[in-house]
Amino acid sequence: MDNAKRRIVIVGGVAAGMKVASRARRLDAEASITVVERGEKVSYGACALPYYLEGLFDDLDEVMQTPTGVVRDAGFFAKVKGFEVLCRTEAMSIDRQQKLLRIRDLTSGTEKDLGYDQLVLATGNRPVMPPVPGIDLDGVHPLKSPEDAEKLMALAQKARRAVIVGGGLIGLEVAEALVHRGVEVNLVEMKDQVLASALDFGMASLVHRELRKSGVNLCLAEAVQRLEGEAGRIRRVVTSEGSYEADMVLMAIGVRPEVGLAREAGLEIGPTGAIAVDEHLCTSDQLIYAAGDCVESVDLLSGKKVYVPLGSTANKQGRVVADNLCGKKERFPGILGSLIVKVFDLNVARTGLSEEDARLLGAEPVSMLVPSPDRAHIYPGAKPVVIKLVADAVSRKLLGAQVIGPGAVDKRIDTLVAALTLGATVDQLANLDLAYAPPFSSAMDPLHQAANALRNKMDGIAASLDPVTVEEMRQAGEDFIFLDVRSPAEHGEVRIPGARLLPLGALRERLEELPRNTPIVPFCKLSLRGYEALRILKAAGFEQVRYMEGGILGWPFKLETGAPAGQECSSKVA
Amino acid sequence: MDNAKRRIVIVGGVAAGMKVASRARRLDAEASITVVERGEKVSYGACALPYYLEGLFDDLDEVMQTPTGVVRDAGFFAKVKGFEVLCRTEAMSIDRQQKLLRIRDLTSGTEKDLGYDQLVLATGNRPVMPPVPGIDLDGVHPLKSPEDAEKLMALAQKARRAVIVGGGLIGLEVAEALVHRGVEVNLVEMKDQVLASALDFGMASLVHRELRKSGVNLCLAEAVQRLEGEAGRIRRVVTSEGSYEADMVLMAIGVRPEVGLAREAGLEIGPTGAIAVDEHLCTSDQLIYAAGDCVESVDLLSGKKVYVPLGSTANKQGRVVADNLCGKKERFPGILGSLIVKVFDLNVARTGLSEEDARLLGAEPVSMLVPSPDRAHIYPGAKPVVIKLVADAVSRKLLGAQVIGPGAVDKRIDTLVAALTLGATVDQLANLDLAYAPPFSSAMDPLHQAANALRNKMDGIAASLDPVTVEEMRQAGEDFIFLDVRSPAEHGEVRIPGARLLPLGALRERLEELPRNTPIVPFCKLSLRGYEALRILKAAGFEQVRYMEGGILGWPFKLETGAPAGQECSSKVA
Repeated sequence: MDNAKRRIVIVGGVAAGMKVASRARRLDAEASITVVERGEKVSYGACALPYYLEGLFDDLDEVMQTPTGVVRDAGFFAKVKGFEVLCRTEAMSIDRQQKLLRIRDLTSGTEKDLGYDQLVLATGNRPVMPPVPGIDLDGVHPLKSPEDAEKLMALAQKARRAVIVGGGLIGLEVAEALVHRGVEVNLVEMKDQVLASALDFGMASLVHRELRKSGVNLCLAEAVQRLEGEAGRIRRVVTSEGSYEADMVLMAIGVRPEVGLAREAGLEIGPTGAIAVDEHLCTSDQLIYAAGDCVESVDLLSGKKVYVPLGSTANKQGRVVADNLCGKKERFPGILGSLIVKVFDLNVARTGLSEEDARLLGAEPVSMLVPSPDRAHIYPGAKPVVIKLVADAVSRKLLGAQVIGPGAVDKRIDTLVAALTLGATVDQLANLDLAYAPPFSSAMDPLHQAANALRNKMDGIAASLDPVTVEEMRQAGEDFIFLDVRSPAEHGEVRIPGARLLPLGALRERLEELPRNTPIVPFCKLSLRGYEALRILKAAGFEQVRYMEGGILGWPFKLETGAPAGQECSSKVA
Repeated sequence: MDNAKRRIVIVGGVAAGMKVASRARRLDAEASITVVERGEKVSYGACALPYYLEGLFDDLDEVMQTPTGVVRDAGFFAKVKGFEVLCRTEAMSIDRQQKLLRIRDLTSGTEKDLGYDQLVLATGNRPVMPPVPGIDLDGVHPLKSPEDAEKLMALAQKARRAVIVGGGLIGLEVAEALVHRGVEVNLVEMKDQVLASALDFGMASLVHRELRKSGVNLCLAEAVQRLEGEAGRIRRVVTSEGSYEADMVLMAIGVRPEVGLAREAGLEIGPTGAIAVDEHLCTSDQLIYAAGDCVESVDLLSGKKVYVPLGSTANKQGRVVADNLCGKKERFPGILGSLIVKVFDLNVARTGLSEEDARLLGAEPVSMLVPSPDRAHIYPGAKPVVIKLVADAVSRKLLGAQVIGPGAVDKRIDTLVAALTLGATVDQLANLDLAYAPPFSSAMDPLHQAANALRNKMDGIAASLDPVTVEEMRQAGEDFIFLDVRSPAEHGEVRIPGARLLPLGALRERLEELPRNTPIVPFCKLSLRGYEALRILKAAGFEQVRYMEGGILGWPFKLETGAPAGQECSSKVA
């Protein structure tokens, strides 16, 4: 290949495409590099768009800036980065024999061919618009591009009521944005939980409570049947369960990879529907690479192909493609499906496999739910984080994690991402020399607490039940004593309806009050005293004891607050 | 061994000792468990004491509470935890033949023997008080126990001027506490930097700037010669360089392991001066275990014995000892020397080996300094973190890290702790699927940025110099062009004195202004444009180009602010 004349053409100028172009230029000063972008703007941070709607920044150009405030437009790229960007230019087709990309100037309508030596597809994704009646009404929009954000912003500034269809990342982020703008929000989700591909039901239920507390009308297990309008404008959304007035509708039921160009060129499409690539991100044509939201990835734990489009992955892949284009054989190892999202005052994150995923793959998953304060309890501002860990009972390797709470969730999930990627066992997690000082964590970090609780369970020291199972047992009318071992004062503030109070401090003296033939499920605020109670009961010969993981903080169902009926004085007696 | 009569005796009732007792009780309901504690209080969080001085909480009893507000006194332990705690009781000597611990009631003065089947030493540390004249004056104190904290609090409430001797963790934390109380603080440190065992000089220099900015009079490279008083009370501290008036003095030059009891009993003391233990934390007597601040640990990377007393390690070790006491063979793997400390608005953390440590161990360390915003730059509240990574040039394994900044430093250091513990390479770090959303990080996390910058350096794509080396070259009068490639507007706000401005956007057009025979060292605010400039210059045939790592944000020396002399209009022209 004659480097001096080498032509690299990149289709798509958002995250992956621009990263490929920038790094390829840095690695090869001679090659001709051209980026073809259908939209008006390049290199924007799509993940920031919900925060624009929320009003956290005023100028959409900011999503195209470098951290130091330089706007990245076509002129910037020519001058600073040294490559060409063709905006409002659509890639029409690929002639792989002749190595030509057919492009169309969307302003003038003229078409021409661009010759390439190497082609990169970074065509991104497109939002799924369900084929329901009324989907084309004015006021119904997805959120993908800065242009979408401008349109939704214009709607939001006048809207009183909005319907958001879809409880995924974008649906949740925009729900918060609209509530903060004073818009009444109905969030309609077909499944019985939000973030269905990311969280277990119990963890998602904590998110449901936060959404409702924050004023979102959450409509779960409802399917949109049609959108109704007047004079071409949206007026209401009709679901399987009801009808919701709306001045605007965000469609956010998911995205699909944009693979039309690749498919028509005969490139292999993978099992997920995204472009198939090898570990070097090369497509089935060795002159064509692909990166970002149009390709599938390998799940590092299951080894399976997955489709998880994210800006973070797109950036990493862009770098790998640039290296490979320039003769440096680089691999993109794969992903863990890590996600994080802020939902009002709750931070919600996950990585790796769910218990269900793990079971389907033949593992013997054991899980544990542990809430803890995110820093020393004496340090001002300590807030809870609820950690759910999944590990394999045989290898003891960590398989996945979900972390939710108002506290520092992001720190724990990223530490877990490193641990999972590198094959850590739960025992290794328990002994990580994490950096400790009271403003940042506890002497036993929430991760250590969670790892140790899981080890106790795996080692047979502490049998436990997760809150969802306990609630199912209650619903099924099973006979067991649901034992709250907190103090009367704590019980007076908030409690699980129907649980029986017997403070841990009195337990050793009042064992005779408890029947020996009935199962006992102790719990407390976190899970430490619940576990302590289990050990005391077991030592006293009670055999059917399992403590409830997660305690009050991990309990996703109804809680009662204020003085309990008939025992108003109990907290004063304590 | 007859479990029903087994007697476990634990010397020391703070972190490690109480953890051993609590878990041993949970694992073995029958054994007799007794904790012997010299002080009045048990189970306190010593790490919280500086925050008490700062006034962040009012009641010292809070450092003895569980996260849910239960005070952990002797009554609590008897009733809830089911073991005995003897406070104000000193362990005098061990008779290993007879398996007897001689104890003395410090209130009554009576002595007696406690028989043990297994003994645990959790005797902690003691602050080093240097043998200088005046060390016994009133108003001169270390900070170790709640009693010390009460005394220092009483002094701080009346003091106008304080001297803190020692720039370690406690010295820095108390400096902040006293400044916040309105006390004038002189911090005297014998070395030429604070946190000398934790940070490289360049990183420590960022801390020096923060301390001075916050009003601390920082006296580096000064040795305390004597303390002078009047009527038995401290009045001034005389150092090798000057004299500082003081109403109170905190002595915080370090701690030593409390090993008197162990040494007199003939137990092996390790090379660090702390009690020698095997991987199960067993001493040279198989019936005696030891944990916490009185034992040495293994450094996971160097394999060497080290002494790093921390509450987090003490808690982990306590659990391991309890398991071993109860027949569950558990290992304590070792530590990385992870530390974190809040110094006014700066978070300061480190883990693993320094470049110097690594070199001494025979590695070929390469380091890289990279500042980045801690979350998406458009998201409100984004703040910088400066990451210094050290990796081995041959194996590409990460060896150590230092992270400093007003941003989310704790998250990055803990992710690095997991990565280092599990043997990650810099390439693995660069591709970790960290959880991304704008409120929490950037699409390329600061860790990815740092890893990729280091890979570029290791792969010969970008030669670079750290700021300390650049400053040394300047001081030595070396001939090179120190090239600021930021915008004139940025240059107008803050700049390195003596650097020459040539904005990146103009660089390709103005190459002829630069001499070809003089080395060029470009830099910017972070390091991205400095690196970009290097690639442009290299492509244009300039051979002697190395960019400065860290940019303005990582520059620990003098910065100029405001309009530069003689070019007041430049920022308007930009």
